[in-house]
Amino acid sequence: MKCRVCGKTAVIKLKSHNTAFCVEHFVEFFERRVERAIRRFKMFGRGSNILVGVSGGKDSLSAWLALKRLGYDVTGVFINLGIVPNSDLAQRLVESFASENKLKLAVLDVKDYLGATIPEARNFTRKPTCSVCGMVRRYILNKFALENGFNVLVTGHNLDDEAATLFGNIMDWNPQYLARQYPVLPEQDGFVRKVKPLVLCSEYETLAYAVVMRIGFDRSRCPFSKGASSQFYKHILNLIEHDMPGTKQRFVTGFYEKISPIISGQAKKPEFKKCKICGYPTTAGDVCAFCRLKELIRKG
Amino acid sequence: MKCRVCGKTAVIKLKSHNTAFCVEHFVEFFERRVERAIRRFKMFGRGSNILVGVSGGKDSLSAWLALKRLGYDVTGVFINLGIVPNSDLAQRLVESFASENKLKLAVLDVKDYLGATIPEARNFTRKPTCSVCGMVRRYILNKFALENGFNVLVTGHNLDDEAATLFGNIMDWNPQYLARQYPVLPEQDGFVRKVKPLVLCSEYETLAYAVVMRIGFDRSRCPFSKGASSQFYKHILNLIEHDMPGTKQRFVTGFYEKISPIISGQAKKPEFKKCKICGYPTTAGDVCAFCRLKELIRKG
Repeated sequence: MKCRVCGKTAVIKLKSHNTAFCVEHFVEFFERRVERAIRRFKMFGRGSNILVGVSGGKDSLSAWLALKRLGYDVTGVFINLGIVPNSDLAQRLVESFASENKLKLAVLDVKDYLGATIPEARNFTRKPTCSVCGMVRRYILNKFALENGFNVLVTGHNLDDEAATLFGNIMDWNPQYLARQYPVLPEQDGFVRKVKPLVLCSEYETLAYAVVMRIGFDRSRCPFSKGASSQFYKHILNLIEHDMPGTKQRFVTGFYEKISPIISGQAKKPEFKKCKICGYPTTAGDVCAFCRLKELIRKG
Repeated sequence: MKCRVCGKTAVIKLKSHNTAFCVEHFVEFFERRVERAIRRFKMFGRGSNILVGVSGGKDSLSAWLALKRLGYDVTGVFINLGIVPNSDLAQRLVESFASENKLKLAVLDVKDYLGATIPEARNFTRKPTCSVCGMVRRYILNKFALENGFNVLVTGHNLDDEAATLFGNIMDWNPQYLARQYPVLPEQDGFVRKVKPLVLCSEYETLAYAVVMRIGFDRSRCPFSKGASSQFYKHILNLIEHDMPGTKQRFVTGFYEKISPIISGQAKKPEFKKCKICGYPTTAGDVCAFCRLKELIRKG
């Protein structure tokens, strides 16, 4: 097996692209895929002030490093969620990674925003932990980005994440969810622009990039994530990919190109009000979900 | 496990409906599902002159019998495809079934239409056998229905068939294929109305109906169908159904209700010409695919 570019011994074989690379040319391939996603979906430009939400996992750290190496102005933001011992370990890994790579980093504490850690906040709601934690993180990242002058918020979602979400969304075909499934969510009143530059990179490719770039990423799994349906959909999609390499990519980009324009033009747009407490947009009544949870925590 | 209706011992458990039935009430349940599909998708009425394409398999024979029992005016049509020994066996089963149940039946021979059997015709084309055979059967059924005064052509596609086709279509999101995926294709110049009344009945339910109704159906598999991707998609969908009962049904009906109206309004309609030889519609140039194959066979 030889590298497609230089003919030296290949270290990584990509069945979905029917090709193979040495370390050097795999890195080049991966970063070009990131650049291609940025241009194809018009995510941001050279002058953008980019915030990257980093968890310490392979995806967000790879996105952060690849963007830096591609010459973009990136700052990382890490939220310590108070999950013991995962969050502190992740914070240390992110801090070392930032200092090794001379990357700008902001570290936030969920308690400063919400008044409680995620494990504490769980007791104040009946919703699944992953959905509460996702809501809290999205709120904090959006608020931090807007209040600190960033044009765009990057998340590390890769092709497999997108494929699994799309798969879940088509199992019951909710047009409003489908309309929001796109690698760019444009800025609007109270929302920073959100983009996913790893959307053309599979989980396997992202892992390989993190490994060959010697990124010291957090390999632990969140103790609350067991049995998440996204894991099941990823498994199903991997079965299909195994039989028909390239399907995942066609599935996701085919949707973006051929169906998303049709559906997003037709689906009802959600109506946003301003939250009476924080002023950020909400569809859930007078008070947004974050402030409602915060109030419950304050009282209880 | 007890029958939901009468409380007697149940013989069939339906996880996707979270229920169970005795033989008598399962038959009632199944036939009501067929009736519900007919009404929900406005397939046909009591006065319609209905042609049922029957292969001898469980699906088409179940559809034929259920429609008869529901009081519709149905005639079966069987095409002998010349696959040895499968086609002759299937023909005998269909003929006995028709005479046992006092059903009207027309038996056609593919050679009378095409000039060759399917195994012979295979040698005149590079296309996959299943796709050639499908084209030939659709052509003959449509022509026979129109030339014999039928309003509507029924096929035995069940929920699993529809789910597998939809699954295949969303793996590359072809809007034109998606626009045609609906349990009713209305009549238009040169095309009879086509409907799928088993669309709400799973493969398992249809098999159970065929068994309890003692339908002597053809259990052999076509020798040319090995490795068909629809089988792979059915397997994948069954894995999902096993973990999340009811998903298949939500997947198919959700698409029909929420997405199909959006896509079919937006997708380009295919443009039909009249075939210069037979006068039936074609999108494939001056001569339709059937007549082109027939010409090749005549010359070769």
